[in-house]
Amino acid sequence: MLKFIVHKQNEKLKEEYQRALGENASVLAAAQEGEALYADSLGWLDTEVWANARVVEKLQKLAEKIRQEADAFVLIGVGGSNNAARSVIEALQRPGTPEIIYAGNTLSANALKKMLVRLKGKSVYIDCIAKNFETLEPGSSFRVLRKWLYERYGERAAKRIIATGTKGSRLEEICTENGYTFLEFPENIGGRYTAMSNVGLLPMAVAGVDIEELVRGAHDMQMELRGERPHGAWAEARAERAARAVQEKPGEKEVCGKLAGRNPAYQYACMRNVLYGYGYRVEMLSSFEPQFRHFYKWWIQLFAESEGKDGKGLFPVASEYSEELHSVGQFVQEGTPILFETFLDVKGQQDSLVVEADETLMASLADGFDYLDGKDFWSINKIAYEATVAAHSARVPCMTLEIGALDAYHFGQLFYFFQFACYLSCKMAGVNPFDQPGVEAYKVKMFEALGKDV
Amino acid sequence: MLKFIVHKQNEKLKEEYQRALGENASVLAAAQEGEALYADSLGWLDTEVWANARVVEKLQKLAEKIRQEADAFVLIGVGGSNNAARSVIEALQRPGTPEIIYAGNTLSANALKKMLVRLKGKSVYIDCIAKNFETLEPGSSFRVLRKWLYERYGERAAKRIIATGTKGSRLEEICTENGYTFLEFPENIGGRYTAMSNVGLLPMAVAGVDIEELVRGAHDMQMELRGERPHGAWAEARAERAARAVQEKPGEKEVCGKLAGRNPAYQYACMRNVLYGYGYRVEMLSSFEPQFRHFYKWWIQLFAESEGKDGKGLFPVASEYSEELHSVGQFVQEGTPILFETFLDVKGQQDSLVVEADETLMASLADGFDYLDGKDFWSINKIAYEATVAAHSARVPCMTLEIGALDAYHFGQLFYFFQFACYLSCKMAGVNPFDQPGVEAYKVKMFEALGKDV
Repeated sequence: MLKFIVHKQNEKLKEEYQRALGENASVLAAAQEGEALYADSLGWLDTEVWANARVVEKLQKLAEKIRQEADAFVLIGVGGSNNAARSVIEALQRPGTPEIIYAGNTLSANALKKMLVRLKGKSVYIDCIAKNFETLEPGSSFRVLRKWLYERYGERAAKRIIATGTKGSRLEEICTENGYTFLEFPENIGGRYTAMSNVGLLPMAVAGVDIEELVRGAHDMQMELRGERPHGAWAEARAERAARAVQEKPGEKEVCGKLAGRNPAYQYACMRNVLYGYGYRVEMLSSFEPQFRHFYKWWIQLFAESEGKDGKGLFPVASEYSEELHSVGQFVQEGTPILFETFLDVKGQQDSLVVEADETLMASLADGFDYLDGKDFWSINKIAYEATVAAHSARVPCMTLEIGALDAYHFGQLFYFFQFACYLSCKMAGVNPFDQPGVEAYKVKMFEALGKDV
Repeated sequence: MLKFIVHKQNEKLKEEYQRALGENASVLAAAQEGEALYADSLGWLDTEVWANARVVEKLQKLAEKIRQEADAFVLIGVGGSNNAARSVIEALQRPGTPEIIYAGNTLSANALKKMLVRLKGKSVYIDCIAKNFETLEPGSSFRVLRKWLYERYGERAAKRIIATGTKGSRLEEICTENGYTFLEFPENIGGRYTAMSNVGLLPMAVAGVDIEELVRGAHDMQMELRGERPHGAWAEARAERAARAVQEKPGEKEVCGKLAGRNPAYQYACMRNVLYGYGYRVEMLSSFEPQFRHFYKWWIQLFAESEGKDGKGLFPVASEYSEELHSVGQFVQEGTPILFETFLDVKGQQDSLVVEADETLMASLADGFDYLDGKDFWSINKIAYEATVAAHSARVPCMTLEIGALDAYHFGQLFYFFQFACYLSCKMAGVNPFDQPGVEAYKVKMFEALGKDV
């Protein structure tokens, strides 16, 4: 499953961490059940509700049709309507599937014009994802792209337009009146928690990602973190495959499960809470695998919006190693001691590329890298990771979240893991994990300046 | 020129800022002359040394030749050998120029294999940029790509290989023995300050960027910040064109110049220093123009490596607005008050895309965005910027660095501006702006694990 590792730490921190594990058990218990207080935001807690077998099957069919007809699929969405899908697509898109283009996430004329240029001559489908269809970026991009499609395809454009919004919303009415395909945006899930729903899953499926595996990963993580038995339509099949999936790592299941002290999301939340108490103010999520590049953005939104309120919260930042060892690495090692580091590590070898001895240079002159001869980049990168953990943990607190592989199944696990851990962290910090009152301030001023009746 | 604006601030901060402007004049004076102490790192201080007319002409010729023969140009480099060129290329690459591919900035087998796939069937040139040719990422990528080129082109591969290293380095010997093109990496400039040299300029030129304009922008900024008269080979021509370039903004020159209190780099450095004294620990560079996406990485390296030492420094982060108003925006407005914000704003309109009234929908149903009818995205985006400054500055200190346009000339200005401001900031903080001792820690452990004789 997913393993939580705390690296080299001093005695005092160890004690604080152990105390936290003991003191917050009730927080975990409450979250595992889901509190009535947040009932209207916990639609993600049971993946069976919005990501069950019927949903997955329906989305796979729709995605298959889109893949057959489209060269380009435009995802119109910002923040929670974009980040989860984009995280997975940029890491796992299958070759030969439609180019996924992002819109509705900018107001830049330059960026929008570049986007339209990329569409030239392509067969295009669009999906406008907006829970609150008042958001400026997706609303304005939807306007521009609809116009583009009608000019290009006339009335047949309608077949190429998909919109994902809440039931009874204006967006649904627009779809009904104009014959667009409508998908439901879960009313009881906030944008940043919607990876496992129509919002995140359709674009992933269009990009050829195995969303059944992804959902299975999320569901298995749910079983572990909430200490549940698999249930729902696929329970049997899933439990069986899940068992197979973790066979090569026997005993791993013990790490998780009901036992609070062995629940990785709870361990992670407790450690974050302890470090905040210590005065750390920045959490850096780091990985040596560039495939996580966009996943960082999803993670940053999840924690920044959930935890950053009431004057509290750890500021979430990310670091792409090994590249950024050559930039922020210096600060981690010797700068103002305000940050701690959480590494994302992939245990099983995914790729292989061997550094072959150099025969291209004249014999008289080696390039000085002969010590790499015959070594696999996979191992070299792993050694860089281990050396970095050793060096950084001597200065700042470091932990690692270890997953078995970088695939759809484990992305599903990560989404559920962090959503649940974020819920726990916010409860420990005493803030509402599901609202974002702070984003209204600029909107009020902006809408006023734009002459919108509020 | 470049304008420094401090937004809404309380009286106490105003006083502190004014005091700082008065107290640090000697720091500015010393930096304007360049201190003997840092003589071996100040090669960038006078752009005439490493980015004079002869250098630019030579690079433009070489770039022209590469453009004629290559479909793809691989920049092998990490950190300071990559970030400046990439910043400009991703913002301003001219259509029809070779695809610029980045290598030598990762150890990921997956990323390297994807990179090789992108080269298939293309006519390829490579430039390996490494001041210290012991760095693992560029060294190993150079090995892989050289092999690829020789397998593809046989001995003719040599013509397609360029390397940028210090005089007398092993990299130069390799070039000499094998007939590769060698460019000099300035011995007296640290990687993160090399934008204005062979390091940054050749890849930009290959991408069709007007490097003469870029260097002119840097030179003009140098004149302003160091209070110099234009000098060197192009002085006359430059001064004249610079004059034309700022004509539409009369009086602007006054803002800068020798007068300490009106030197924008000095103003910016003083304010950063005051805010650090106030307890702020994170500086967020924000812009509403996605074209700055990679420039953020250059800026983050510059400040993280220069200032993050001796337990000091502001942790540099960046925010891509308007997209990230939907993620970190919440934290800025209501999270732990550890950050202040520096906006990068482009004054002159660059692009235009008008939101047209919606005729695609059935008359009975508007999309709710009619208040945008006839408005230009350029203005909408500007309104979003102003609303954000108003909202954020009510909670956290905010300043803006305003440039006239987003073009090569102003990128040149920004590079010089931030390099000089960083030099000033580090002096005020009492740290060495040009070393990065902290990055050695993990290298020692890594090389040991890799069996390299040290």
